[in-house]
Amino acid sequence: MQQRIILITLGVSDLAASRRFYIDGLGWEPVLDIDEIVFLQAGHGLVLGLWPADELRKDVGVDGPQGPHAAMDRMSLAHNVDSEAEVDAALAEAEAAGATILKPGQRADFGGYHGYFADPDGFRWEIAYNPGLTIAADGKVRIGPVVP
Amino acid sequence: MQQRIILITLGVSDLAASRRFYIDGLGWEPVLDIDEIVFLQAGHGLVLGLWPADELRKDVGVDGPQGPHAAMDRMSLAHNVDSEAEVDAALAEAEAAGATILKPGQRADFGGYHGYFADPDGFRWEIAYNPGLTIAADGKVRIGPVVP
Repeated sequence: MQQRIILITLGVSDLAASRRFYIDGLGWEPVLDIDEIVFLQAGHGLVLGLWPADELRKDVGVDGPQGPHAAMDRMSLAHNVDSEAEVDAALAEAEAAGATILKPGQRADFGGYHGYFADPDGFRWEIAYNPGLTIAADGKVRIGPVVP
Repeated sequence: MQQRIILITLGVSDLAASRRFYIDGLGWEPVLDIDEIVFLQAGHGLVLGLWPADELRKDVGVDGPQGPHAAMDRMSLAHNVDSEAEVDAALAEAEAAGATILKPGQRADFGGYHGYFADPDGFRWEIAYNPGLTIAADGKVRIGPVVP
């Protein structure tokens, strides 16, 4: 698993309030701004995601082994890879290193494939293969629909 | 305030356990690994910091107006700028946009100048001027001591 974070997702309580702060207030431009999620470029090949906390919890999988990790349910870091097999491999590597698998590799709502693990403190990492996400040479991230 | 995150700090409960996971387990190489803090390169111009949660809380300033924001005390995002004046300007801009100032701009323990605000959900942002932190053209971050 390479040293790479592509996405920081904040689980927000009121997406309209978050839009007012980051977009209207700070003037940040979204990479993607649809009904229920906002992605903002936040660095070279880095995106900040604003997503209702309930959606983020559901995405991680509320039936998973949350236990002591439940308190960290307002944020996740994402590491993207280039294939489904690499998602499974990264999850296995993290588990071997001591992580708790919260959601095994599986088809994702965004059209790709993903899973989640928790680090020793419960911080959540998503490992994702998202064919709709590309990073240009200048670091600009584009997130579009996955065409099957 | 530009759309730029330079540092994600996780407030960990046991730094030795975090080292075992990220460094020994995943094999990630530190940018800086000293007694009480570990910084890992996590992307182009991006660093993941592992810091005991108590230290992170102290750095934000426990006497600040935490209130409803206390639950977010295990993580912070950092935006770096090039001068003390820019720290104050970014904090003012965030406050005007609806943020709560948790720590006004002031001299920082790392040798530079910084402050913290909370976004509408309480997620904490550090605005920092750190002359000891440089980003090379290839995105590699170096964090060294600040020479006064």
